[in-house]
Amino acid sequence: MEKALQGVRVLDLTRVLAGPYASMILGDLGADVIKIEHPDGGDDSRGYGPFVNGESVYFISLNRNKKSLSLNLKSPEGKEIFLKLVKKADVVMENFRPGTMEKLGLGYGELEKINPRLIYAASSGFGHTGPYSQKAAYDLIIQAMGGIMSLTGEPDGPPTRTGASIADITSGLFTVIGIMAALHKRKETGRGQKVDVAMLDCQLAILENAIARLAVTGESPKPTGNRHPSITPFAVFRAADGYLVVAAGNDQLWQKWCRVVGREDLVEDPRFKTNADRTEHWDELEPIMSEVIGKQRVDDWLNLFEEAGIPSGPINDVAKAVEHPQVLARDMVVYQDHPVAGRIMMPGIPVKLSKTPGSIETPAPLLGEHNRVILRELGYTETEIERLKEKGVI
Amino acid sequence: MEKALQGVRVLDLTRVLAGPYASMILGDLGADVIKIEHPDGGDDSRGYGPFVNGESVYFISLNRNKKSLSLNLKSPEGKEIFLKLVKKADVVMENFRPGTMEKLGLGYGELEKINPRLIYAASSGFGHTGPYSQKAAYDLIIQAMGGIMSLTGEPDGPPTRTGASIADITSGLFTVIGIMAALHKRKETGRGQKVDVAMLDCQLAILENAIARLAVTGESPKPTGNRHPSITPFAVFRAADGYLVVAAGNDQLWQKWCRVVGREDLVEDPRFKTNADRTEHWDELEPIMSEVIGKQRVDDWLNLFEEAGIPSGPINDVAKAVEHPQVLARDMVVYQDHPVAGRIMMPGIPVKLSKTPGSIETPAPLLGEHNRVILRELGYTETEIERLKEKGVI
Repeated sequence: MEKALQGVRVLDLTRVLAGPYASMILGDLGADVIKIEHPDGGDDSRGYGPFVNGESVYFISLNRNKKSLSLNLKSPEGKEIFLKLVKKADVVMENFRPGTMEKLGLGYGELEKINPRLIYAASSGFGHTGPYSQKAAYDLIIQAMGGIMSLTGEPDGPPTRTGASIADITSGLFTVIGIMAALHKRKETGRGQKVDVAMLDCQLAILENAIARLAVTGESPKPTGNRHPSITPFAVFRAADGYLVVAAGNDQLWQKWCRVVGREDLVEDPRFKTNADRTEHWDELEPIMSEVIGKQRVDDWLNLFEEAGIPSGPINDVAKAVEHPQVLARDMVVYQDHPVAGRIMMPGIPVKLSKTPGSIETPAPLLGEHNRVILRELGYTETEIERLKEKGVI
Repeated sequence: MEKALQGVRVLDLTRVLAGPYASMILGDLGADVIKIEHPDGGDDSRGYGPFVNGESVYFISLNRNKKSLSLNLKSPEGKEIFLKLVKKADVVMENFRPGTMEKLGLGYGELEKINPRLIYAASSGFGHTGPYSQKAAYDLIIQAMGGIMSLTGEPDGPPTRTGASIADITSGLFTVIGIMAALHKRKETGRGQKVDVAMLDCQLAILENAIARLAVTGESPKPTGNRHPSITPFAVFRAADGYLVVAAGNDQLWQKWCRVVGREDLVEDPRFKTNADRTEHWDELEPIMSEVIGKQRVDDWLNLFEEAGIPSGPINDVAKAVEHPQVLARDMVVYQDHPVAGRIMMPGIPVKLSKTPGSIETPAPLLGEHNRVILRELGYTETEIERLKEKGVI
């Protein structure tokens, strides 16, 4: 059976991370994504390291399953080509600073006139409305403004950035949801609409119970560090050769833990008898548990805990995570051959559909790799294509 | 115009966070979400603090726009009611441990026979396939195993958990994408399918360039802390009354920064002349910048930086984030009246659709609040409903 989004044509003007991440998900699920890049260097992230044979692996890992059309949207011919594509497209995506497309005469208002079925998805730092809409944003700034950094890190330590660009990525995910919702509605109404997703909005949306806690207590939640605030022990510990997590969420599991590690004496210790006791006396419990766990290796402990049925896990670095048997069994690490960079490792597709699974077919395109095929489809002749190239339109 | 997902009926068996977060997004966009809960206490998160008038605000903030049907799926009558609902439903969602629905005789294989159009979405810690599929998972364990903790925190510090439950939340987002993709495909094929989303898979999917970096260098990326690894200054600083971020990504912005803070002498300092110089001498630059910034308040600096066009921002705690003018202008903080808990603050809807915007209509339901209306719709009489209640079926 064909893939879920087969037949959905996406014109993708996005660059760097949030937008390309969103269009990659659409492409993985079968959409026909045409990445439109400036002829002069293309997507900025083609210049981001690390590189292999001069090709950016950053770019390669975010742009599989897409075609590349190089196009100068500021030239009249470039604009004409774009508008011809818009007529037959289902989705236009962009993550320019708000107002950029309007300045080019290519805002949603204009494009809608040409193709009322078009879905126009804009991702930006602050969104297309509101007093901050014109400001530039970076992941670090949005993580800082949106509250999540104030919740991450040790209770008395400085605010901490999440080590993946979570502000970009969550806005990419919400953008996909918006596009899909608009596609769904379009089947009924025949009309497209504009999807406006702001990175900052998405940061608020992922704070979940932090906002509830603020609402009730009147105080901003503090960073929780690496432990559960009310379930004990539910925390990170350092073993002899690395870190691990123990999540013994009730009294039975706690007692099992004491026995497994050879500290039955702790079972009857009144400081640690109930979850409330353990939470109250965490300052005393933590060094005891740390000392015990520090004596053996991560794998030895995890085997013992697993046999005893105590929820636990290693803290994997990326190298260990990509070798985890469950990750491999779920095809979450894939290798793809790139014509210049060679074999490249990248994440698989986390949306597992039983009948129309996604797939990773073509590697990230070279800049303008599909110019000829796309322009021929629009009716341009070889001579015309050559001329467009000479003029720097493509 | 009706909302985007109006007419999509979702039977939502999910509990706590990942699943309810996903079904909340569907409900916000107009889906008819029936939350099916065990009559004995319902969703576990009804028991999670903080509470107002005995109602969990945690639960309230994740279950708006849903109806509640209390139903014991282990009783024959409960199962019969569920199957009647399945016949007319578009989507069933669950986040039980894999195999639970099969044990109840309600696995996708069974439900598909009753309703071939049904989309069955399962979110779980490790997914429905692979050697770990039967294991229980918690956000902390998945964050630990998936690699993101190894990237978060200070370069030489311990691995750090992201302060929101990012493993649950991203799996919720990918689950929504899977459901929407299956809905899209169903319009063409008339057939539903199973969507299987694992929290661990989603953690791999959000590592983005960390996997590329590993692939190229052969070494696991280290935690990057609060600064950009190759652009300087692009980091967190402590002002007199709190933290802020400065992202002066090129030489012009760096020179502007020096002038704005009254340290023109730094412009000509050979240690800091180019981005490469500044990155190389970060250990010397950081204390100089910190000393300067420490002397004034966050707002004073941000005003100066903004006038000079230097990208910057405050590190907001949650209380400040929910009061930010851009957040308010985008309706990202909303208040909803709950019949028992009163007026509750919660995040708004980050997917902004121009023609069929989402909306927040009904507050989180009381347990079984909609039993009568749903069962009447299925043809049950008042007497029968009363009997089901007495028997503990609902």
